[in-house]
Amino acid sequence: METKHDFIYTDWILIENQFQPNQLHARETIFTIGNGYLGTRGTFEESYPRALSATLIHGVYDDVPVVYTELANCPDWLPLVVIIDGERFRLDQGKILEYNRELDLHQGVLSRSLRWRSPTGKTIDISFERFASLADHHVLGQRCQLTTVDFHGLIEIQGSINGYPENKGFNHWEGLDQGKSDKGFWLHSRTRYSRIDIGMAAKMTISGVEAAMQVNTAPGYPSISATFFSEPRQTVTIDKIVTVFTSQDVVEPVSAAQEKIAQLPDYITLRDANQEAWAEVWQQSDIVIEGDSKAAFAVRYNLFQLLIAAPRDNNRVSIPAKTLSGFGYHGHIFWDTEIFILPFFTFTQPALARNLLTYRYHTLDGARRKAIHYGYQGAMYAWESAVTGDEVTPRWALPSDFYGEDVRIWCRDREIHISSVIPYAAWYYWRVTGDDEWLRDYGAEIILDTAIFWSSRVEFNPQTQRYEIRSVIGADEYHELVHNNTFTNRIVQWHLEKACIVGDWLRRSFPEKATELEKKLQLTDEIRNHWQEIINKIWIPYDPETGLLEQCEGFFQLDDINLADYEPRQKSMQAILGIEGANNHQVLKQPDVLMLLYLMRESAEFPYSKKILEVNWDYYAPRTDITYGSSLGPAIHAILAADLGKTQEAYERFMQAAMVDLEDIRGNSNEGIHGASAGGIWQAVVFGFGGIQFTDHQPAANPHLPPGWTRLKFKLYWRGKWHDFDLRSTSPPPHLPNIRGAIFDLDGVLTDTAEYHYQAWQKLADEEGLPFNRQANEALRGISRRASLMLMIGDRRYSDTQIQEMMERKNDYYVELIQNITPDNLLPGAVSLLDNLRQAGLKIALGSASKNARVVVEKLGISDKLDAIADGYSVQKPKPAPDLFLFAAQQLGLPPQQCVVFEDAAAGIDAALAAGMWAVGMGPPERVGNAHIVLPCLDGMTWGKLQGKFRDIALEKRAVITI
Amino acid sequence: METKHDFIYTDWILIENQFQPNQLHARETIFTIGNGYLGTRGTFEESYPRALSATLIHGVYDDVPVVYTELANCPDWLPLVVIIDGERFRLDQGKILEYNRELDLHQGVLSRSLRWRSPTGKTIDISFERFASLADHHVLGQRCQLTTVDFHGLIEIQGSINGYPENKGFNHWEGLDQGKSDKGFWLHSRTRYSRIDIGMAAKMTISGVEAAMQVNTAPGYPSISATFFSEPRQTVTIDKIVTVFTSQDVVEPVSAAQEKIAQLPDYITLRDANQEAWAEVWQQSDIVIEGDSKAAFAVRYNLFQLLIAAPRDNNRVSIPAKTLSGFGYHGHIFWDTEIFILPFFTFTQPALARNLLTYRYHTLDGARRKAIHYGYQGAMYAWESAVTGDEVTPRWALPSDFYGEDVRIWCRDREIHISSVIPYAAWYYWRVTGDDEWLRDYGAEIILDTAIFWSSRVEFNPQTQRYEIRSVIGADEYHELVHNNTFTNRIVQWHLEKACIVGDWLRRSFPEKATELEKKLQLTDEIRNHWQEIINKIWIPYDPETGLLEQCEGFFQLDDINLADYEPRQKSMQAILGIEGANNHQVLKQPDVLMLLYLMRESAEFPYSKKILEVNWDYYAPRTDITYGSSLGPAIHAILAADLGKTQEAYERFMQAAMVDLEDIRGNSNEGIHGASAGGIWQAVVFGFGGIQFTDHQPAANPHLPPGWTRLKFKLYWRGKWHDFDLRSTSPPPHLPNIRGAIFDLDGVLTDTAEYHYQAWQKLADEEGLPFNRQANEALRGISRRASLMLMIGDRRYSDTQIQEMMERKNDYYVELIQNITPDNLLPGAVSLLDNLRQAGLKIALGSASKNARVVVEKLGISDKLDAIADGYSVQKPKPAPDLFLFAAQQLGLPPQQCVVFEDAAAGIDAALAAGMWAVGMGPPERVGNAHIVLPCLDGMTWGKLQGKFRDIALEKRAVITI
Repeated sequence: METKHDFIYTDWILIENQFQPNQLHARETIFTIGNGYLGTRGTFEESYPRALSATLIHGVYDDVPVVYTELANCPDWLPLVVIIDGERFRLDQGKILEYNRELDLHQGVLSRSLRWRSPTGKTIDISFERFASLADHHVLGQRCQLTTVDFHGLIEIQGSINGYPENKGFNHWEGLDQGKSDKGFWLHSRTRYSRIDIGMAAKMTISGVEAAMQVNTAPGYPSISATFFSEPRQTVTIDKIVTVFTSQDVVEPVSAAQEKIAQLPDYITLRDANQEAWAEVWQQSDIVIEGDSKAAFAVRYNLFQLLIAAPRDNNRVSIPAKTLSGFGYHGHIFWDTEIFILPFFTFTQPALARNLLTYRYHTLDGARRKAIHYGYQGAMYAWESAVTGDEVTPRWALPSDFYGEDVRIWCRDREIHISSVIPYAAWYYWRVTGDDEWLRDYGAEIILDTAIFWSSRVEFNPQTQRYEIRSVIGADEYHELVHNNTFTNRIVQWHLEKACIVGDWLRRSFPEKATELEKKLQLTDEIRNHWQEIINKIWIPYDPETGLLEQCEGFFQLDDINLADYEPRQKSMQAILGIEGANNHQVLKQPDVLMLLYLMRESAEFPYSKKILEVNWDYYAPRTDITYGSSLGPAIHAILAADLGKTQEAYERFMQAAMVDLEDIRGNSNEGIHGASAGGIWQAVVFGFGGIQFTDHQPAANPHLPPGWTRLKFKLYWRGKWHDFDLRSTSPPPHLPNIRGAIFDLDGVLTDTAEYHYQAWQKLADEEGLPFNRQANEALRGISRRASLMLMIGDRRYSDTQIQEMMERKNDYYVELIQNITPDNLLPGAVSLLDNLRQAGLKIALGSASKNARVVVEKLGISDKLDAIADGYSVQKPKPAPDLFLFAAQQLGLPPQQCVVFEDAAAGIDAALAAGMWAVGMGPPERVGNAHIVLPCLDGMTWGKLQGKFRDIALEKRAVITI
Repeated sequence: METKHDFIYTDWILIENQFQPNQLHARETIFTIGNGYLGTRGTFEESYPRALSATLIHGVYDDVPVVYTELANCPDWLPLVVIIDGERFRLDQGKILEYNRELDLHQGVLSRSLRWRSPTGKTIDISFERFASLADHHVLGQRCQLTTVDFHGLIEIQGSINGYPENKGFNHWEGLDQGKSDKGFWLHSRTRYSRIDIGMAAKMTISGVEAAMQVNTAPGYPSISATFFSEPRQTVTIDKIVTVFTSQDVVEPVSAAQEKIAQLPDYITLRDANQEAWAEVWQQSDIVIEGDSKAAFAVRYNLFQLLIAAPRDNNRVSIPAKTLSGFGYHGHIFWDTEIFILPFFTFTQPALARNLLTYRYHTLDGARRKAIHYGYQGAMYAWESAVTGDEVTPRWALPSDFYGEDVRIWCRDREIHISSVIPYAAWYYWRVTGDDEWLRDYGAEIILDTAIFWSSRVEFNPQTQRYEIRSVIGADEYHELVHNNTFTNRIVQWHLEKACIVGDWLRRSFPEKATELEKKLQLTDEIRNHWQEIINKIWIPYDPETGLLEQCEGFFQLDDINLADYEPRQKSMQAILGIEGANNHQVLKQPDVLMLLYLMRESAEFPYSKKILEVNWDYYAPRTDITYGSSLGPAIHAILAADLGKTQEAYERFMQAAMVDLEDIRGNSNEGIHGASAGGIWQAVVFGFGGIQFTDHQPAANPHLPPGWTRLKFKLYWRGKWHDFDLRSTSPPPHLPNIRGAIFDLDGVLTDTAEYHYQAWQKLADEEGLPFNRQANEALRGISRRASLMLMIGDRRYSDTQIQEMMERKNDYYVELIQNITPDNLLPGAVSLLDNLRQAGLKIALGSASKNARVVVEKLGISDKLDAIADGYSVQKPKPAPDLFLFAAQQLGLPPQQCVVFEDAAAGIDAALAAGMWAVGMGPPERVGNAHIVLPCLDGMTWGKLQGKFRDIALEKRAVITI
């Protein structure tokens, strides 16, 4: 629990114990709460400069230029302002003495407790708590508790609804009316263009003190304030309850909000009901992981974010790409939902999965309008979809600079595989749940009308006598205009196969419905025959000799690329190469052929086979921009890597996906949760590590648990029954290090003082006429001052006094030189590794033979990053004796086997090994080859990467893991 | 003063005496106030649903998608909410018993007084007053006075600043801080992207009662409220003063606002200072018109709107196309300012003109960046300009529907004449003011660097051996891609001529400055020689035989058009023909060749001559969409028509421009004042009607006053001196009717009851075996029932009883038939003419021989549009006797010669003439040719048009008007 700078994860609770103003927006996303009706970002009750507060309600879209429509940020129910003797509580002023924010996934409650000292020195303990009730979706609860610490004073609390919410500046609402009520107020607003009404009501109660309450109705900003005089150590509790309805729920949303709030019980009763509802949900959807607490929490966190985003009572909306947690993609809905997110719901909350898929039924008319617009038949789904199902992908990325280029976005026109992947999702929902009624009433129409679209979209090439699909963007969006994308062609073929089956099934099982639907869709035998012909003759670019699938026509003729040549990098390959450059290279934004293999994996249909997977993985995985390309990639790669026994890579990709928001890996968590990644995580755990496969009668596990995982437990709903899985690894890897501390040598590891030592020695040698040069200096690495001097002197004779004097002289030169040290003298990667280790919870010590270590550390500005310092004064025996490192470990309070030493000298490595510690050698293997791990330098190194390397070592050593 | 439905104009005051919720946004524009620092739309203090409140400050732009930048609507200083025993004063609830809103142009004060009854029946008199001080631009004043009429009650007043202002939904501001102060509060906000800070402070005082005051600081919506108990007939006065500064004015805008407000005197003192400042401004800028009160007011109104929009202490901003009064064109600055608006300032407020032109100097760098972007040299001005001078014309008009077409806007690329018209304006400013210093320091650089641009832009055509300018949009924007636009080619030629002169002048007068500038602009002899060559060889498409200029290469080959074929219409010809259609026709959005003639008129340079003007007017004026094309057209046409002695047309165009906002003629006044039209009005009065021309020594008038104008008085500043003009028409036209009342026949004029009469007569005739048909019915028009029956009977013999019975029978049939009458039976144009006449202040009577007139009027739903009814019961003698109309005139309280009769029957016309009234005949001249004016129907008719016709009549009759 020593993490000072970042998250602490318990089983169920995310803890932030320091306010991070520079990560404000990402943290607002991460601390989003919700209940499937709405989502509310984790903005502070008292706000903060440039905060991006948002409450987004499913289906409440409004018009906006360029991107057509977006989820309208709704009136903000959070404002709760505390004013202490005229000073407003705010984190950008005064002093934060204590800070703790917790998101409890199991209870669905976000809380924060602080001790704050005002600019004039008044200290107060403030805690906040909030939840969006899962038990009653129209109820929102807030509690604030205040305890004055060291003053008597007048305290005012203003609880408000802010009727001026913004989507990055745009307020979608017109205030219609507002008014006072008993201990509260109400607000009535309407979206500007879509004319959706919202009614909200609020009431506030205060206990623990007598307070004067007053309602103020500033237009659009109604608030209720309580004013009281507070005594030190007196605790006052303020409960604010808010109700919310829209005209999509009820005819009179204002009355509904007012009536509901009048009937509600107290805060604690409401919070308990919410908690109970959450317990039920987790009952079905939880995944237990033991042996890897970070992964265990991260998986639950991702599932929580999906659960709060899934509509529970509404099948005319769906989960947007960024859930209800941010403004990214404007609340538009992509294939992310059906392919990445849906399986989690299908297998653990099938009623919610049904809602999500039924949205696609209700938007068929929009898909039909899109087909007509493009000159096709049937239903052509929108690449980005909102309330009507019409296409809402923007056409343009417009420059904000006066003379920039307009960039045409082609996804709406060309990324058409959406019209087969929705049927894919519908098919699998049916296969898993056996929900025949849904297929009859909704799914069949989706599957058949999109198939009709395809029969008007594919082209017959008379020269080659095959069907082709030209001018598309496949799954990989780096290639914006390709022909015969393998992914698209095969998924269309698959879709038409299934359309035939579903059509037959419907005619057999529900002949009347079949007749009705065929009439409605004008589905004739001719069309069905055409489907069959397309199935037979569509071109799949595949080489049966090698097993290699070509991503699209001509892909192998594009310029090849070696992604390693571009490392290290902080941006996508498209950002580096440009749009045209990416188009012209064999570089992928996300899996394409591999995505196809993933989709065909469960049923092992063509082209899926272990061999084909292997061949294509080897070709495409190294060419995929898995770090800064699409966030859709890592989870899929994790699953396929697990299939191929690449456990380490599987785990790395998995963690990359699992931590994408918690660690803001892509730097865009401010825009909202990566919903598809979260859904992919569930699939990676269950299908990848759990290795779940489906026989005719039941799902079965064929697990490949990552190293360290001792247990994996979850439930699946399959064909009407729940199936429990409790997978255990009985013998955890014996040598997997449990490293909790890091000890750093200074010279040559953290900084370049070796150079200053050399200069000081050289000066001394020159003065004394001793033979010395840079090469000779190499031999001095890691050994003490005296030993160094002895080496230089060699056979020459000096008195002890002379020797002492020379040592002091050399040291004087050195001390003089190191006065010039600044943080610039830190070696690349040193600071970020130190920070990263601390964030990971490791303790850090310095282990340097230098008597000047403290000065150097001071000059380098890293004192506060070290928990202990072992230096030239600490022990007698120099390296390679283990004493110095053992001393450091003792200072850290850790046993040697839980410490890792970073050293650049052979003597240092030997000392570390002698101490029974793990050793990381910096430099050439000839010098530091005895270390467990050898690195060229610290640059780019992270605790995650080191752990991976330790895992690999452990893996090589461990026996077969039995489950 | 009987106008019930619309504006009343006094010399200086615009009066609205009825609340018009359906014209809310246009009226907000019309009642804009300002002081050259900011403009504030006439939104109500208590607001209104969907109100578009705005305060726009010069130079406070912020980024926005598609159009790059816009004037950010600033925090709203208006909110002043009155709550009476819990009921909020609002015009959409309760009852408005009295309503009066006045804009006093001379004092610069907007006021409103109301008597309002709350939903629960409490009556209160409320008056508001506001001004933006012209004496101190950072000071805004508001006063509210309340007098309870019939109740005792608790009254609360909330005075606020709304920190959530919107540009059509977009809030450009981030709230930074706010706080309480003595009797007030302050607010600190910052624009989202341009990072401009605003500081505002407010204080509120109350007199006439003891009140409890409280400041509330709801985040972003600070307010101060006063609560008091009111007695009937007690008057309470609330004064709210606001100060405002931005970081463009001072370093610390919040402190500046706080310091200023602390030092201010009371409301009345501030208002007096404002009034005094306005008196001074009008001293120079007023125009007095006598004999045409509507025009007199309209001219002052337009000048007022220009005066409040002109920056007084800032030469880095300029007047946007829609001034500071609305969101149209986003506060972007066009050539409207230099060509249409500037002369008013040059001649009456030269210091302000200097500010406006200097803005173009400060934006030269932006113009240079634009030139570089397009691959040219020198300075290429932005078609739409904002703070930097970079091009901010949007590239696209993006559709809001999902599948609409993107429309590329080409003005930024092609409408390049801006780079010569700015030099044109600079040249004339210099010629008029003699401001050599300005030309040296600012103007010369503008004129020369744009000339350098042209030398890189024109192309030499080796085939024709001439210079050409290809691919432009000329002044006429209906043609989006033309070559060798005459307007552009000639203005460029003119510009290069003047550039040579200015260059020579500078070298002669200020050789050092000349050297410096030539070095800076890299202006060489080679370039100067190139200019001369272009001047000599640029192609001006002109036929010296006919004097006709061709608008552009190939214009005469386009499809010709007869605009009359499209009448009546309510939209532009581009809206009717489509963009391509307009491109392909000889139809103009605004004057182009005629605009060139206008610009060359003052100096009588080529191609201006009376003869060329005449020829080109005859060609182009009928092809110009002067009604729904550009609002830039009418004022220019008015001036040219005046030159050509087309007094009636000149006056019509003039009034079309003058009333464009006051009467919302184009239906887009909601977006802001038509600034260019307002500027054109001044030019039309001074240059057109005043006929001002400049000799070498002084300006001289050559007036063509419109009929009715007895006096035209104004001042001009020219070459260092003020010149007064007081032009009088000594003999007003003797027969110009002073019509103050209108009398309408019913049958055949307002409605079709003639048809019912016919049917009733026909039924009677059939029953009686009398010969009768539609043709015979024609003879019955306008004569009494008895006379009609007599005509039908002819020789046949009937008893008086029988005759009486037949008359009654016919009447019964008729009464039966007219039960079916509804407002749909009104003839086209009837209602709008009735309304229009009322708006113009005329009284209206019915003059019908029918005894059923009242029933019919009731059924038609026009009772409340009539001031009197003369019907079959009113007088004995039927038409053609004058009695009925004389009776009607008496009822209206008007002498016969002030009444006009609308009649469709010959007998009715005769009756009107016999009464000494003016007669308008409806129908064929054979029937109503005796009338003064003959119209086919009422459709499209307005009082303005009728007045024009009366003027024409008067004009034909009147002798020469001597001045």
